[in-house]
Amino acid sequence: MKITVIRKAHFNAAHRLYRKDWSMEKNDTVFGLCNNPNFHGHNYEVEAHVSGPIDPETGFVIDLKILKEILKKEVHDRFDHKNLNEDCEEFFELNPTAENIAVVIYKLVKNKLDSKFDLKIRLYETNRNFVEVVA
Amino acid sequence: MKITVIRKAHFNAAHRLYRKDWSMEKNDTVFGLCNNPNFHGHNYEVEAHVSGPIDPETGFVIDLKILKEILKKEVHDRFDHKNLNEDCEEFFELNPTAENIAVVIYKLVKNKLDSKFDLKIRLYETNRNFVEVVA
Amino acid sequence: MKITVIRKAHFNAAHRLYRKDWSMEKNDTVFGLCNNPNFHGHNYEVEAHVSGPIDPETGFVIDLKILKEILKKEVHDRFDHKNLNEDCEEFFELNPTAENIAVVIYKLVKNKLDSKFDLKIRLYETNRNFVEVVA
Amino acid sequence: MKITVIRKAHFNAAHRLYRKDWSMEKNDTVFGLCNNPNFHGHNYEVEAHVSGPIDPETGFVIDLKILKEILKKEVHDRFDHKNLNEDCEEFFELNPTAENIAVVIYKLVKNKLDSKFDLKIRLYETNRNFVEVVA
Amino acid sequence: MKITVIRKAHFNAAHRLYRKDWSMEKNDTVFGLCNNPNFHGHNYEVEAHVSGPIDPETGFVIDLKILKEILKKEVHDRFDHKNLNEDCEEFFELNPTAENIAVVIYKLVKNKLDSKFDLKIRLYETNRNFVEVVA
Amino acid sequence: MKITVIRKAHFNAAHRLYRKDWSMEKNDTVFGLCNNPNFHGHNYEVEAHVSGPIDPETGFVIDLKILKEILKKEVHDRFDHKNLNEDCEEFFELNPTAENIAVVIYKLVKNKLDSKFDLKIRLYETNRNFVEVVA
Repeated sequence: MKITVIRKAHFNAAHRLYRKDWSMEKNDTVFGLCNNPNFHGHNYEVEAHVSGPIDPETGFVIDLKILKEILKKEVHDRFDHKNLNEDCEEFFELNPTAENIAVVIYKLVKNKLDSKFDLKIRLYETNRNFVEVVA
Repeated sequence: MKITVIRKAHFNAAHRLYRKDWSMEKNDTVFGLCNNPNFHGHNYEVEAHVSGPIDPETGFVIDLKILKEILKKEVHDRFDHKNLNEDCEEFFELNPTAENIAVVIYKLVKNKLDSKFDLKIRLYETNRNFVEVVA
Repeated sequence: MKITVIRKAHFNAAHRLYRKDWSMEKNDTVFGLCNNPNFHGHNYEVEAHVSGPIDPETGFVIDLKILKEILKKEVHDRFDHKNLNEDCEEFFELNPTAENIAVVIYKLVKNKLDSKFDLKIRLYETNRNFVEVVA
Repeated sequence: MKITVIRKAHFNAAHRLYRKDWSMEKNDTVFGLCNNPNFHGHNYEVEAHVSGPIDPETGFVIDLKILKEILKKEVHDRFDHKNLNEDCEEFFELNPTAENIAVVIYKLVKNKLDSKFDLKIRLYETNRNFVEVVA
Repeated sequence: MKITVIRKAHFNAAHRLYRKDWSMEKNDTVFGLCNNPNFHGHNYEVEAHVSGPIDPETGFVIDLKILKEILKKEVHDRFDHKNLNEDCEEFFELNPTAENIAVVIYKLVKNKLDSKFDLKIRLYETNRNFVEVVA
Repeated sequence: MKITVIRKAHFNAAHRLYRKDWSMEKNDTVFGLCNNPNFHGHNYEVEAHVSGPIDPETGFVIDLKILKEILKKEVHDRFDHKNLNEDCEEFFELNPTAENIAVVIYKLVKNKLDSKFDLKIRLYETNRNFVEVVA
């Protein structure tokens, strides 16, 4: 049996989709309204899906207090009420598309988890647009 | 890494579950209330899950404007405010169960996507009944 | 203090917006896609808001088993898996707009409630369009 | 009977809470993380609640196509993918708190509605924080 | 204009509906499964609706940090992961129906708010059953 | 093609996380507030995901009436308005963590399904914490 535990977190952030090495015209063509130089923003919702065996002692795959704390530190405290492009070094050279944000979060959370766990990240940019990352 | 982008669409439609080649009695036995000859209806919600590599240029798996447009044309405009049995040729000879509707949508959307993408369709008939199709 | 108890019910139905005494052209102009002669449909969600004093004996405004039963009989069993225009006498001469459906439900439920209660009906046609009726 | 029709819209925007005439220290004390000079953002959801009599001709309080169009023009197109502080003149001299945004939207929508209608605006900044404005 | 700010909180608790001064038979007749002597439980969701004028200085009706803190102390920390009947003195002599819980929360929150504010409490016992209290 | 049909059920229950063979101190350290000796509770939501081929006769993977009945009997009627630790033999010797509850439900439902079907169970303890079990 494969058991997966899922915990939700969230952060509210501003961002802008663009590449510094492209002209404003090309950025507008590719990224449209998302290339507003003054930024726009989202309420991001993050689900961390952690898979592994159930510990027969506790009945837990992973203690949710630990997973909650990892998400608080690595996701919420890092990105909440931030401008992803301007405030967060992860995106100084990386376009903060939902895909790239999810990959960054995947790596940050994976790095704090015991290597025995598999991880999937689901990131909601809106309730109509969302992405998943799994290795 | 496997990256998946999900986009939602919806349509409101009437339908009836029955087979022309079965008696009314047999249709009633198998399909119950869903065999109302005057039809009933649903607010269908559709999720298209598109998987592929991130384009390093744009940071997108697929430009959501393109996916949104495919869903508008192939799903919303085709089925919204329609009677699936009476108005939609896809169901003239196919019983519009949630399963069959999802398979039809899978084929319509897959046909418009670059072949490099994997696709999964999730279709909500209600928020208690839904189906998934993946090839 | 004013105390209100709210209970949800639902029904899935087909309908069509039109007036028999108008031409097809006028119906199309006013009701657009909702005037599909073959009908379309919705998952309707209904909230009954019942206000009154708390019974000091039970701690209830109204026993939810009673309210649940009223909604089952007067709303769910009457309208679920029905064509509102064709199957439901309430709409043989009344255009089944969300407004009119909510007024009909208001009257049906009010009629079964003790007169000491105030009632409000909220009806969701979709999660973007809904109506409220209160007397 | 009082009948109310509700229609939802949304916009994704960046904002910052602060007053130009206050010191950075005072802004930080009062507005905390919301005073990030680089902005943060939200997926705003807006509900317009329009009350009035049912038109016996159509069965509508207000044609939803009209209300939808007002919300598209006055709310979505004006604020979506914008920085409220930098791009929207409504907030050049007004702190874009949820309360103030809702009042601005109330006035914009009220101004386009027939005066016979009552209006309430509900604005979700997140699904934990929201505001209502009614005159 | 009447402006209302709404903030959500939650708590997960066990409870049982019964009156000590009634026989087990009478409790069963009135409260049914809710009279399980070993208790059952719910994820309760609470909305505090606080109405008052907008402070022209801050643009706030009430600083959400303050409202959030009141809800944390008076609702979450008091009732979360508790048995309402056994652990919470508010219900030692009061049947913890949704109505009574909402009235208790109304009083606890009202008591901590500036008297200039009006308050409404909405309490979800499930997403199908909920109550409102307003004075 | 792999087709999956999903049906939702729910139950409201009390529980407590602890091991009889551990001291109160160790139980507190590991399970924290969840080790309240008087129990707490949740609104559990269950999704049964049943995968198999579409029956070309009916257009169904599985008749939802059958799946609904299995969930009613094996999940709702067994656990609703119960104390999992005290009333349900499945947990007399098994700690009712979300993981263990989901495994128990997996086995109960799998046992009633035709062996040709694959099953996944998703169990929501809250809308922030949930688990999945798949064999």
